[in-house]
Amino acid sequence: MRTFRLVIACPDGVGIVAKVSNFLATYNGWISEASHHSDTESGWFFMRHEIRADSLPFDLKGFYQAFAPIAKEFSMQWRITDSAVKKRVVLMASRESHCLADLLHRWHSGELDCEIPCVISNHDALRSMVEWHGIPYFHVPVDPADKQPAFAEVSRLIDEYQADTVVLARYMQILPPDLCQRYAHQVINIHHSFLPSFVGAKPYHQAAKRGVKLIGATCHYVTEELDAGPIIEQDVVRITHRDEVEDMVRLGKDVEKMVLSRGLRYHLEDRVLVHGNKTVVFN
Amino acid sequence: MRTFRLVIACPDGVGIVAKVSNFLATYNGWISEASHHSDTESGWFFMRHEIRADSLPFDLKGFYQAFAPIAKEFSMQWRITDSAVKKRVVLMASRESHCLADLLHRWHSGELDCEIPCVISNHDALRSMVEWHGIPYFHVPVDPADKQPAFAEVSRLIDEYQADTVVLARYMQILPPDLCQRYAHQVINIHHSFLPSFVGAKPYHQAAKRGVKLIGATCHYVTEELDAGPIIEQDVVRITHRDEVEDMVRLGKDVEKMVLSRGLRYHLEDRVLVHGNKTVVFN
Amino acid sequence: MRTFRLVIACPDGVGIVAKVSNFLATYNGWISEASHHSDTESGWFFMRHEIRADSLPFDLKGFYQAFAPIAKEFSMQWRITDSAVKKRVVLMASRESHCLADLLHRWHSGELDCEIPCVISNHDALRSMVEWHGIPYFHVPVDPADKQPAFAEVSRLIDEYQADTVVLARYMQILPPDLCQRYAHQVINIHHSFLPSFVGAKPYHQAAKRGVKLIGATCHYVTEELDAGPIIEQDVVRITHRDEVEDMVRLGKDVEKMVLSRGLRYHLEDRVLVHGNKTVVFN
Amino acid sequence: MRTFRLVIACPDGVGIVAKVSNFLATYNGWISEASHHSDTESGWFFMRHEIRADSLPFDLKGFYQAFAPIAKEFSMQWRITDSAVKKRVVLMASRESHCLADLLHRWHSGELDCEIPCVISNHDALRSMVEWHGIPYFHVPVDPADKQPAFAEVSRLIDEYQADTVVLARYMQILPPDLCQRYAHQVINIHHSFLPSFVGAKPYHQAAKRGVKLIGATCHYVTEELDAGPIIEQDVVRITHRDEVEDMVRLGKDVEKMVLSRGLRYHLEDRVLVHGNKTVVFN
Repeated sequence: MRTFRLVIACPDGVGIVAKVSNFLATYNGWISEASHHSDTESGWFFMRHEIRADSLPFDLKGFYQAFAPIAKEFSMQWRITDSAVKKRVVLMASRESHCLADLLHRWHSGELDCEIPCVISNHDALRSMVEWHGIPYFHVPVDPADKQPAFAEVSRLIDEYQADTVVLARYMQILPPDLCQRYAHQVINIHHSFLPSFVGAKPYHQAAKRGVKLIGATCHYVTEELDAGPIIEQDVVRITHRDEVEDMVRLGKDVEKMVLSRGLRYHLEDRVLVHGNKTVVFN
Repeated sequence: MRTFRLVIACPDGVGIVAKVSNFLATYNGWISEASHHSDTESGWFFMRHEIRADSLPFDLKGFYQAFAPIAKEFSMQWRITDSAVKKRVVLMASRESHCLADLLHRWHSGELDCEIPCVISNHDALRSMVEWHGIPYFHVPVDPADKQPAFAEVSRLIDEYQADTVVLARYMQILPPDLCQRYAHQVINIHHSFLPSFVGAKPYHQAAKRGVKLIGATCHYVTEELDAGPIIEQDVVRITHRDEVEDMVRLGKDVEKMVLSRGLRYHLEDRVLVHGNKTVVFN
Repeated sequence: MRTFRLVIACPDGVGIVAKVSNFLATYNGWISEASHHSDTESGWFFMRHEIRADSLPFDLKGFYQAFAPIAKEFSMQWRITDSAVKKRVVLMASRESHCLADLLHRWHSGELDCEIPCVISNHDALRSMVEWHGIPYFHVPVDPADKQPAFAEVSRLIDEYQADTVVLARYMQILPPDLCQRYAHQVINIHHSFLPSFVGAKPYHQAAKRGVKLIGATCHYVTEELDAGPIIEQDVVRITHRDEVEDMVRLGKDVEKMVLSRGLRYHLEDRVLVHGNKTVVFN
Repeated sequence: MRTFRLVIACPDGVGIVAKVSNFLATYNGWISEASHHSDTESGWFFMRHEIRADSLPFDLKGFYQAFAPIAKEFSMQWRITDSAVKKRVVLMASRESHCLADLLHRWHSGELDCEIPCVISNHDALRSMVEWHGIPYFHVPVDPADKQPAFAEVSRLIDEYQADTVVLARYMQILPPDLCQRYAHQVINIHHSFLPSFVGAKPYHQAAKRGVKLIGATCHYVTEELDAGPIIEQDVVRITHRDEVEDMVRLGKDVEKMVLSRGLRYHLEDRVLVHGNKTVVFN
């Protein structure tokens, strides 16, 4: 069923819900899902509605115009999206295939509701798998001595393929600050630790050294500061003294796949609202 | 902060949220929490609001009168409760102390927001523990040959102490049908299995015999059919071949305590809406 | 590192461990992993050793001959396997791709240490995916009016491809009793419920109807009685009132994949010992 | 059933298991539980046996003498304990009652197999609860300007009551280095975060600030470096954007109790072997 997703963040106050729901009721909008959150600490209010598209008398543009005065009145940061307009997600990977294969299968089987216009990798290893899915594969090697040309090409491809979301599916390269800024809240990374523990390289080795009893994975928006962006989703799995680093790598893969696919799903369905360095996830 | 909790179930339709939120906005009601759910299968709509009591110009009675026309218009099943009026919860136990001790400590430390006017048990074993908390303890033995007098006394105590909720904290006796009917959706039981597996007696023995790899517990409202009432909360814990029945009993205790205390908490905060044999839990 | 896996089940008694470890020490066997379990209820003892193959002076045959007297003395049911001899696993699927794709990727990426000589399906839907992996795909339709010919062909293929393990990766057909008997403890099924709850068809619909708060999946050996064989692995995922059957199907897929791949891994590494209708899993 | 627990750590090598199991078999020892672990990285071997006491011809002293030559041959760090000799555990708490009440109830109901000779607190708040259990309660206030006298008194009480284990059940004071050294691997702390995240004060506030989606607790041996000792057990619980710090505190309490009681249980049953800054936990 096609829906419009109305996503709002604004300073909290009396009458916001009434105003919005009145607006929807006036136009006979059928609300299929509604979520609210008042953040006591920041004094902000967050709201998400799914409304059946066929119950409303206008399209997205019409909605924008009709709703704009309310948005202005309450100083809302807001967006309205159409479930029928699939987001365009560029996947970036390196040599490890598990996250990429997982996302591709979810997409192929219709579980992940998006377009995947292309895959970019700094290695050529996963070309055949990607191309079997009918998706263009771009091998953009990163020269450690001068990474700038590679990231210029990455940026060009993102723009050429009109991506609105980029997923670093174990890409293993740090994006330069200008890309982080340019695509703020559009680049999703999966980090193979339970952040903020074990930031940076080789988190499973760090975990083994510290002797933790659970390992995890974190899906977050990429910001300039490494592994410090707003967290969308996390999960963990139990390990024991028997699990060496290679076992952690294997067990961790399953957590990474689950956490990334869940986080991406929330993002695609406009369930994630970023506020400062934190997220509200209406799942 | 004192709140009013407005809990509504009604046939789904356009304009309900608008009407309710308009009503609240008209009276300047400050909504601190709002939850909605449209059940596609049954065509029912469920809604819960917490509103700051001091933001409204009336008390519960006034609210009832003012809201009644809306409730009638949409054929609502509804209630409004005051967080300052603590529910009165009678605890019933047998010989096992873990659930009772857990609830008493949560109550004593201020975590469980209710009154516990008395504890009823078919054994005298836990009297001292209960009385240390300053709570009356009634030993009501159940004669297997004629259980009726015991349950008459139980019923009398429930009424005398004006309980609105009864918790079977591993009471181990089956309530007679008339009590189940009389206190429908007011009696909460903890069953030591992941229902619907292992209904009835000795669920851990049943689990051991079947060779399951997880055991669980289920918190549910009591109905006439044994262990078949609406489920409020469930959880599980992993076991291995090394765990014999006595280990399951020990591991299960922790799950029982957690599941019961969570389920009771949801109930006390008016987060549980029963519809048919299922629950909506706005947690 | 190549290992021999010595797996033993026998009536419990004093001196078994000593005899076995003495035997291994005599031949200078380097034990890389050892697990024991005394089952109090049945009075049986279970034991698994991994021994570095290069530390022993003989091959599997030599091991058999040398160890046979000890095995006889303690009435052992036992086997010795070579990690370098990969098990041959025939996968069977229907239309749903998630479990099949998951296992194929794990195999392709080297995580699942086995041969997959062929895939058999009662539909032709997944041929391209399977063949991309370089694995033969056999479409064996099952005529509801006469299933015998199909299962005769299935049996022929299993034999032709010398499978020692068959995985029903959401095959959705019930194997006839003669196949269950013929390949006892060799056929692994994934059932999409937390058994023994919701045996048989449409378990997610059953779960939705009962209003459970967790759904699960069970990996078990197939026996003649439907969904009643020895359980290898289980897991669950939390759901809420918002999750309709289609959401359960989606959420359940991830649990099914995880549970099946873990259970199969334990089987492939000879970590599962069946005793009666239960398993010892040395993981 | 009374058992002897033989716990061994030594450099790995061929023949250790054979030697130990031969020794036990020679004396007709009935092994009820056996666990081994070869740590590839450190090259160490860890081993734990439970042997029925009545199957052996000697007491602990006799065992020591008989086993000493083997221990010497393999340079073992080892101990043998008697399940009938309960460990003496001094509990230390501050104002928060949840961990203390939980441990006291487990002890009172026979689940926790130890002696609790006394409870020490820097506040007088929990005296009545402790004394109801028949356990002496010592109020030892800590003067922020000069903590030395308080810790001298703590140390004196630990010695006077012949404790072999000290549990910091949310004691909230940092032990001075000399106490950490004196009771190395004998002092167990519960930290209310998933270490190594959120070391030090107010971890729930830190967690709220970082916007994590799971919070946890860690049970570890106390060392001089704050919250950096060998980890015995950890666990987590899911939170959402709706959970403010006070909710985290409430949800976290349940994790703290579970993790501490499990970790302490492993310790009491001699299941924890410390090696460097990591633990082997044979549970």
